[in-house]
Amino acid sequence: MSSVAIIGASGYAGQETLDRVLGHPELELVALGSDSLVGKSAAALDVRLNGSLPRFVSNAEAAASGAELLLLCLGHERAAAFVPPVGTVVVDLSGAHRLHDTALYAQWYGWAHPSSNDGWSYGIPELTPPQTELVANPGCYATAAILALAPLAGAVDPASVVVDAKSGVSGAGRELKASSHAGFVLENLSPYKVGSHQHAPEIAQALGFPVTFVPHLLPIRRGLLATCYVTPTVELRPLLEDAYADSHVVRVLPEGVVPELSRVQQTDGAEIGLFEDQATGRAIVVCAIDNLGKGAAGQAIQNANLVLGLDETAGLRLSGVLV
Amino acid sequence: MSSVAIIGASGYAGQETLDRVLGHPELELVALGSDSLVGKSAAALDVRLNGSLPRFVSNAEAAASGAELLLLCLGHERAAAFVPPVGTVVVDLSGAHRLHDTALYAQWYGWAHPSSNDGWSYGIPELTPPQTELVANPGCYATAAILALAPLAGAVDPASVVVDAKSGVSGAGRELKASSHAGFVLENLSPYKVGSHQHAPEIAQALGFPVTFVPHLLPIRRGLLATCYVTPTVELRPLLEDAYADSHVVRVLPEGVVPELSRVQQTDGAEIGLFEDQATGRAIVVCAIDNLGKGAAGQAIQNANLVLGLDETAGLRLSGVLV
Amino acid sequence: MSSVAIIGASGYAGQETLDRVLGHPELELVALGSDSLVGKSAAALDVRLNGSLPRFVSNAEAAASGAELLLLCLGHERAAAFVPPVGTVVVDLSGAHRLHDTALYAQWYGWAHPSSNDGWSYGIPELTPPQTELVANPGCYATAAILALAPLAGAVDPASVVVDAKSGVSGAGRELKASSHAGFVLENLSPYKVGSHQHAPEIAQALGFPVTFVPHLLPIRRGLLATCYVTPTVELRPLLEDAYADSHVVRVLPEGVVPELSRVQQTDGAEIGLFEDQATGRAIVVCAIDNLGKGAAGQAIQNANLVLGLDETAGLRLSGVLV
Amino acid sequence: MSSVAIIGASGYAGQETLDRVLGHPELELVALGSDSLVGKSAAALDVRLNGSLPRFVSNAEAAASGAELLLLCLGHERAAAFVPPVGTVVVDLSGAHRLHDTALYAQWYGWAHPSSNDGWSYGIPELTPPQTELVANPGCYATAAILALAPLAGAVDPASVVVDAKSGVSGAGRELKASSHAGFVLENLSPYKVGSHQHAPEIAQALGFPVTFVPHLLPIRRGLLATCYVTPTVELRPLLEDAYADSHVVRVLPEGVVPELSRVQQTDGAEIGLFEDQATGRAIVVCAIDNLGKGAAGQAIQNANLVLGLDETAGLRLSGVLV
Repeated sequence: MSSVAIIGASGYAGQETLDRVLGHPELELVALGSDSLVGKSAAALDVRLNGSLPRFVSNAEAAASGAELLLLCLGHERAAAFVPPVGTVVVDLSGAHRLHDTALYAQWYGWAHPSSNDGWSYGIPELTPPQTELVANPGCYATAAILALAPLAGAVDPASVVVDAKSGVSGAGRELKASSHAGFVLENLSPYKVGSHQHAPEIAQALGFPVTFVPHLLPIRRGLLATCYVTPTVELRPLLEDAYADSHVVRVLPEGVVPELSRVQQTDGAEIGLFEDQATGRAIVVCAIDNLGKGAAGQAIQNANLVLGLDETAGLRLSGVLV
Repeated sequence: MSSVAIIGASGYAGQETLDRVLGHPELELVALGSDSLVGKSAAALDVRLNGSLPRFVSNAEAAASGAELLLLCLGHERAAAFVPPVGTVVVDLSGAHRLHDTALYAQWYGWAHPSSNDGWSYGIPELTPPQTELVANPGCYATAAILALAPLAGAVDPASVVVDAKSGVSGAGRELKASSHAGFVLENLSPYKVGSHQHAPEIAQALGFPVTFVPHLLPIRRGLLATCYVTPTVELRPLLEDAYADSHVVRVLPEGVVPELSRVQQTDGAEIGLFEDQATGRAIVVCAIDNLGKGAAGQAIQNANLVLGLDETAGLRLSGVLV
Repeated sequence: MSSVAIIGASGYAGQETLDRVLGHPELELVALGSDSLVGKSAAALDVRLNGSLPRFVSNAEAAASGAELLLLCLGHERAAAFVPPVGTVVVDLSGAHRLHDTALYAQWYGWAHPSSNDGWSYGIPELTPPQTELVANPGCYATAAILALAPLAGAVDPASVVVDAKSGVSGAGRELKASSHAGFVLENLSPYKVGSHQHAPEIAQALGFPVTFVPHLLPIRRGLLATCYVTPTVELRPLLEDAYADSHVVRVLPEGVVPELSRVQQTDGAEIGLFEDQATGRAIVVCAIDNLGKGAAGQAIQNANLVLGLDETAGLRLSGVLV
Repeated sequence: MSSVAIIGASGYAGQETLDRVLGHPELELVALGSDSLVGKSAAALDVRLNGSLPRFVSNAEAAASGAELLLLCLGHERAAAFVPPVGTVVVDLSGAHRLHDTALYAQWYGWAHPSSNDGWSYGIPELTPPQTELVANPGCYATAAILALAPLAGAVDPASVVVDAKSGVSGAGRELKASSHAGFVLENLSPYKVGSHQHAPEIAQALGFPVTFVPHLLPIRRGLLATCYVTPTVELRPLLEDAYADSHVVRVLPEGVVPELSRVQQTDGAEIGLFEDQATGRAIVVCAIDNLGKGAAGQAIQNANLVLGLDETAGLRLSGVLV
């Protein structure tokens, strides 16, 4: 058993991460940190905590708990300032350690990065498994786009790539803001940060060239679908199928089958479908994930499993209730 | 006052068209046709019909009513077989008369068109107002894409154009099918007819070149948003603003303002926003309409107004309740 | 034409009230007050304001505008402190002036009422039309319950009455709070203030006896349905039908027909259905309204019309788009 | 390991039941029956079936598979005609075997029951665990009402009981009908079978007296909330707490805490909250379940576990993802 502490457990990502830890056969939770919930009953967040771990502690206390694995669920800027204890595995679910070129943070995140991201590796288990003890867990939109496109990066015209993505409201976090008010979200679909979202440089870094990326807010709780448009230079299907042939997490669908949010919601899996446009010959690659599953907590656990030498899919939710 | 008959009033488009007719100062409803509702009380569809027009008649009877204007709200294939009475203004809300090259119907609609579409004009009032008594009313997706892109057709790389569109479930009609079952639609977003939807050739016909078009089904009742991606060759904003400078229906939003479904739902208006992608310089044109308003009934009335010589916006809903 | 000022125009009720005023043939808006939006462009709230009334003013300035009619759309406690200009018609959409016994405010609203509510009348146009220039506009839940139950008050066992009500999220206002966050509202139904909601004494005051009332938050934008349970002592249907026989706003449905939110959403109308429980003989009275229509802005205009001597339904939305 | 066959696996209840069986440590699926899917790939329904059980068989073949446990997921009338193999444990998720007095079927179900229900026991594990090999699994609404009210049956005025219940659309099944069309369900709340729903006599049978019961259709996928109103004769909280003190499935919430669908959705658990009405002293008991979990498949597995002598909660989902 490896000991784990969660830092920043009060948000959606923290709560989902907790869920995976509690269902994990090889992880043991030793501290649950939340500066806003210090001293409160942990069982209010998840009934399974009733006996074992009664109270939230501060994030500092959780970080100093001596846990072998820290799951960092803080906001971007607070995560950038976090100093990892030496010799500890850290998986950071924020964007703070994703971009190798930290000069980009000012433009895309709106704040200057305090240090370098050397020593951190960007972990997509199926494509670029983590190489260091410090792991930057990919963004939800970036995950869907990269799963769909990275295996095709050398087989498409780089200038042709467009990613039109749509996410449920949990992707925007638990913070109270006008754009998360149900009166705005219900019966609506809203594009936002058009042409300026911080996952664009993350996708570019993984693919090796810039792409156009536009996110939209859906009136659903959870689930994310990226519709990617590319001009192919060779046959793409074999490249996708080869990339995920051995994966238990990412599933390339047969010809004609459309990815469905309902099959990935509440799970840590992903579905990818490939289509040809009858009118132009362009290829359309659609990837569906749960923004809190493969797009956050599920991938964080998958990355942690790899670094800790555990079975890659231990503790993941890989089948869901379909309705 | 011009006399009007509606043919095929039982579906969503028929019902919306009826709503506009009943609120129109210059139109008088003389027959309400529906083969499935013959003899039934019309007031069940709209309480305003209580006194004046008590019962549904057959579609054949409505067509023979002598009305000056026929609003045709039948399915595509039935509309293609409809023979318009001589000397009558007809606005067809189906796709039957939209494509000039009727050979395309076999590929995109799945059935062979029985005749030619000569004598019909494709009416987008702001761009290509109808020139004949027989008017093909544009499709909902096509309307949004064409409003966003037609003014820019000569100012972008034709090979670059992608239209990623999302529509509420009323766009799929009142027919019972698995993809309209609430258990499928709720908490979901579903791409469909990927690369093969029948509005693609309609958009191509209006722009003069083929584009990639993918529709998605949203878990909302009504509203449609098209996110269009183009590589510009000149500055695009002046072209859009000039195109709609005199329009009371289509509104080009100031820089930085995102089109919002909530501002066009339940109305016959449209909103267009223009954005630049920071990463690639590509332009993003977003158009929001109500699929049953500007995307169907509203535009049909607008087209009818033009052919009948009435005020273009008579009877339209041009401001809505925002919440 | 009567001159109107709106005070507190930035919230949902203010915005809906504005919509009715702008569509009203006998009212002329002379001031639009909002302390949070002072100086901002009014057209951002409603495009129809583009020319005529360019800017928001402070609420104090709006109140002092000399308008013949003030529509008060403030929060409860601020409305209680508002001093009406002499000789002005005021319709207060808040709860501040609804309860004749102001001692009740401490218990049900959580704050002590600063004065008496003498001089204010509680206006339900169909049942208790306003008798004074100062009108307390009923609460949304109270409106639905009273429309359903007041005509039956003498014909049921008072101890038997239960009101189980459900409302869309706009009923909770535009304020940011955890219970209005879309991540909480979507895919949810949530009872709240169980047994302690402030509309309970309002219903009791109208009926003459206390009732049990429980509200629930629905994952919809707008619309309110009250399911009322009573033990009848006589035949109830004639009482309901007589009460609303002359109304253009409230419609008693034929036997077996269920009220539908879709028929009243976006309108100022109401539907009432009456049913008998096969198991116990209890009567079930269901009332559907739009919480922002008949439940707020629509009824406010209807009340104002009556006090100003205008046609009762002038400016109301009495038919909607059904889909 | 006990062998299991599912009969009628294509519907929502069948699919959920399959999910629980596949996650159950002591059950082994040996046949998956569906007359509409015979010969089709079972993995399309659930990817976990990929290797082990490749194809659907007919319901007759599944019934004759020799499985020790049959999970019957047919429609009511087909289930009533089903002849259980001798010596087999059968849990019937339909309503066919719930009412001891089969004469009631004509009135409440609309068809005459072909036989007697002798030999079947109605199984609510926490209150009336099954006593026979043939188990009638309770209805979803009935489960919520009975969990809330049965422990209080002797402590309330029987004539006072009202159950106002609300359910997600999966409760209405996968069949295509107008009331399950997303255009009807979205942005709506709809009471149905008012005073005449077939779960009313089921609740009455469990409580020993008739109650008023009205169901409403919610615009959510899954989840059910019953708000129950009773006039108490003694203190009710101890009765509820005692009834479920040992349960791992049903949780009585502390004073002031409201049951939340989000905490029971996708699980087989239940939450109960007890409140007092400030105005009348009436008690309000709220019960939240997942209509497909504790309201169907979860309870079926729980009943099967009891009859087979397994751990009562084996294979149940007792904690969910909260967002």
